[in-house]
Amino acid sequence: MATGETQIDNGIFRVTKWTIESGDAIPMHVHDVEYVVVPLVNDIMHVTNSDGSELVAEIRIGQSYTRPAGAEHTVANRGSGTIEFVEIEKLL
Amino acid sequence: MATGETQIDNGIFRVTKWTIESGDAIPMHVHDVEYVVVPLVNDIMHVTNSDGSELVAEIRIGQSYTRPAGAEHTVANRGSGTIEFVEIEKLL
Repeated sequence: MATGETQIDNGIFRVTKWTIESGDAIPMHVHDVEYVVVPLVNDIMHVTNSDGSELVAEIRIGQSYTRPAGAEHTVANRGSGTIEFVEIEKLL
Repeated sequence: MATGETQIDNGIFRVTKWTIESGDAIPMHVHDVEYVVVPLVNDIMHVTNSDGSELVAEIRIGQSYTRPAGAEHTVANRGSGTIEFVEIEKLL
């Protein structure tokens, strides 16, 4: 299962720790705001965008990346390990 | 030594990965903006505020916390391990 734990939601930042077990995925969703991802594991994520395009994203512990508002995708874990990352959204 | 690697600086977020070796510290500094910290290790940080007060902060992998603009402090690693965390500052 993919689960999100809200760690901070203070009107400035919303921070969610995501866990995606092997074989599971975060369903299609739209990012309303700019965000940063901080991976907690070294792994591969399979991202499918709403237009059907796919990309394979290699993530590395502590190597952050940012994406603009408007991103719409699923994020799947097709590997054997558990994927964990922290997502920081800018609310203001 | 304490070193900061700028990973993102796009006018919206500034993201810095900090590494504090055993016995070292990040010198006194002021946070101009709100920020989130995502620890990459389980460890203890010794924080000394500009008013002389001290606190011992236990950090855990992936357990984020946020602090307001205006914080002014040193952050020391008095343990034997290397402390690593990612700091996300909100620039806009």
